Amino acid sequence: MISTYNLEDIANKLNISLKDLNKAFKKGILREYEYKDIKLLTFKKEFKHLEKGTVIFLNENLDVVRGYPKTYRAITLYPTIKNHFVDKVAIEEKLNGYNIRVVKVNDKYVALTRSGYICPFTTKKINKYLDLNILDDYPNYMLCGEMIGKNNPYTPFYYEEVEKEYENLGFYIFDIKEKETNNSLPVKERLSLLEKYNLPHTKPIKIVDKDIAHEEIKNIILELDKKGREGVVIKDLDMTVPPLKYTTHFIHCKDLEEAFTFFFDLGVDFIFSRVVREGFMAYEFNDEDLDKRAYDIGKSIIFPMVESIKKVANNERVTEDIELIFDSEEDLDEYLEFMRKMRMVIKIKKIERINTSEGEKLKVLIGKVYNKTNDKILAYLNGTVWSE
Amino acid sequence: MISTYNLEDIANKLNISLKDLNKAFKKGILREYEYKDIKLLTFKKEFKHLEKGTVIFLNENLDVVRGYPKTYRAITLYPTIKNHFVDKVAIEEKLNGYNIRVVKVNDKYVALTRSGYICPFTTKKINKYLDLNILDDYPNYMLCGEMIGKNNPYTPFYYEEVEKEYENLGFYIFDIKEKETNNSLPVKERLSLLEKYNLPHTKPIKIVDKDIAHEEIKNIILELDKKGREGVVIKDLDMTVPPLKYTTHFIHCKDLEEAFTFFFDLGVDFIFSRVVREGFMAYEFNDEDLDKRAYDIGKSIIFPMVESIKKVANNERVTEDIELIFDSEEDLDEYLEFMRKMRMVIKIKKIERINTSEGEKLKVLIGKVYNKTNDKILAYLNGTVWSE
Repeated sequence: MISTYNLEDIANKLNISLKDLNKAFKKGILREYEYKDIKLLTFKKEFKHLEKGTVIFLNENLDVVRGYPKTYRAITLYPTIKNHFVDKVAIEEKLNGYNIRVVKVNDKYVALTRSGYICPFTTKKINKYLDLNILDDYPNYMLCGEMIGKNNPYTPFYYEEVEKEYENLGFYIFDIKEKETNNSLPVKERLSLLEKYNLPHTKPIKIVDKDIAHEEIKNIILELDKKGREGVVIKDLDMTVPPLKYTTHFIHCKDLEEAFTFFFDLGVDFIFSRVVREGFMAYEFNDEDLDKRAYDIGKSIIFPMVESIKKVANNERVTEDIELIFDSEEDLDEYLEFMRKMRMVIKIKKIERINTSEGEKLKVLIGKVYNKTNDKILAYLNGTVWSE
Repeated sequence: MISTYNLEDIANKLNISLKDLNKAFKKGILREYEYKDIKLLTFKKEFKHLEKGTVIFLNENLDVVRGYPKTYRAITLYPTIKNHFVDKVAIEEKLNGYNIRVVKVNDKYVALTRSGYICPFTTKKINKYLDLNILDDYPNYMLCGEMIGKNNPYTPFYYEEVEKEYENLGFYIFDIKEKETNNSLPVKERLSLLEKYNLPHTKPIKIVDKDIAHEEIKNIILELDKKGREGVVIKDLDMTVPPLKYTTHFIHCKDLEEAFTFFFDLGVDFIFSRVVREGFMAYEFNDEDLDKRAYDIGKSIIFPMVESIKKVANNERVTEDIELIFDSEEDLDEYLEFMRKMRMVIKIKKIERINTSEGEKLKVLIGKVYNKTNDKILAYLNGTVWSE
């Protein structure tokens, strides 16, 4: 389909040379994708000044939507925050879901995943739950936020605040950016605009001077940890320096638990980064009870592994089960087709028709299959030796 | 120096083609090395049928010494042992030291490391402690064993049985092989030969039928674990199928502790393999107290990390300190030169002259420097952000 477009125009719009555009195609960095009548190109990797997940829509305008930038992590609160920021900082809660950019394109509102694909499931849900006329007034903006809740396909995690009639799901906007430049609105401007349009968003827990922020954050983190929540993002009020994130002991353990349920599929760097965060946190928080932290970490590693081995030994398959609600069979098929395109191996475990105040819906239990974990556990249980 | 030798003869002796020999040189797999007047080529990687650490001495005979093969690991005892072996198996203790092959070459006894270098330290010690005339009678044999004890340069770990007047060091032979073919003597033949020549060696803890070996090993492993020892190697009595190893909870924790002391230098795969062993062990040993295992693992990860962070925060450098005993300054220099060749960064922290029944010796405290760990901890303590 790309051949029908002028490559020179695309290169111009992306602010790269025609030569580089061709290089990106050749290297497989730039991939074609379409959703219904919307055609686009997506950057699978960072390329020149363009973030991974940057897309260019193959419409008349050649609309560009920049990828959501990586958020850097503070490993120590002090002196990292003090060094990094300018004066005042907003401390906002970091929610544990998946990053979405909502834009208006071809007169439709669509939800782009972090990787730069239009997710049909998410697109349906944001159209259902949100009044998006803000994008009619500001078509150059993208609404960046976190889709959270137990009933999402990527990061199922229960949040009481998004409990709805028949699903646990909600979208919280934490950033508004110009879609072509990736410039963010200042914190206060973003908040007043979102309040005006009555859109759900994360609100600063506190706005403090950067010099004392580490002390405030320490208390906030301990509080969030107790409540079983993920952490914070710290932002410059003018959004002129990049935000930083910092996460709780709770979520490090939770991450490890999930990783070790599918331990032969996980990335080992994933484990390493979690335990290193714990090491620096233990040091900085000056643990009175280092034993408890050690025990929690050990449990998060050992318990899920033994659980998975037992399951496979009992002839069960280890899957990550996710429950999603669809309006129709058609919506389900569209989602399954998308998963296939993303090369996810999934199987449907149960379909249930449920009655809601909006009519009948489908409640579908989907199992993500982790073949490597299943196969390797089975092999070792059957006597395969480990060569090292 | 290699140019003075006939490459065709070398290729013939190694049983590879001249073309492959040149390829090995070109790829940097084959490296020249010399120790005193002994010149050799060593295989830095597995190549064709030749194990990593295989060497060919550049003398008149072109003596070949094959690399010590990898020992495969049983992840589960049952049914792995039962499937892998033929009938009876010998269960021997696996000692926690470094693998050495002792051979006679150019009328000298030398100690080759696993990687195929002549270690001057080890060569001196085996000549001092062992009567090696077995190699005069059987020059085609290599004595394969573990150098253990607190005062060794590679794997310092205290063993009470090798406590000597001024150092904790000893060599235990666990295998005799034909150096050119890598064929092992049958277990009983090896034992009687080593007894005849009065050489220190590992003795079978038990010889049992393969069908019940897993039960025996389980008890032996629990016993070794209590004593803080490494594990077992299980061998076919005729040595016709390769041995298998299996290790204790104790050593997994110990390995993790050491790795996490220098956590930015360690390989992440190293961590992963240890915790996976624990997972399968917990399953197979049917832990009554899985909490204890989890706590031990967590402690082995978190405690040394916090310790290292605290040290760096106190302006100390994290080093692995090793105490070695040398006969003379010359011996020390030779060892330091060898370490430099092996690209180890070490610094001498203390030299002490000690009086022994054999005269004055040097007791040297050597610190292995792990620059990455030191530098990265310091950077994070100073506010560097983590980009992921």
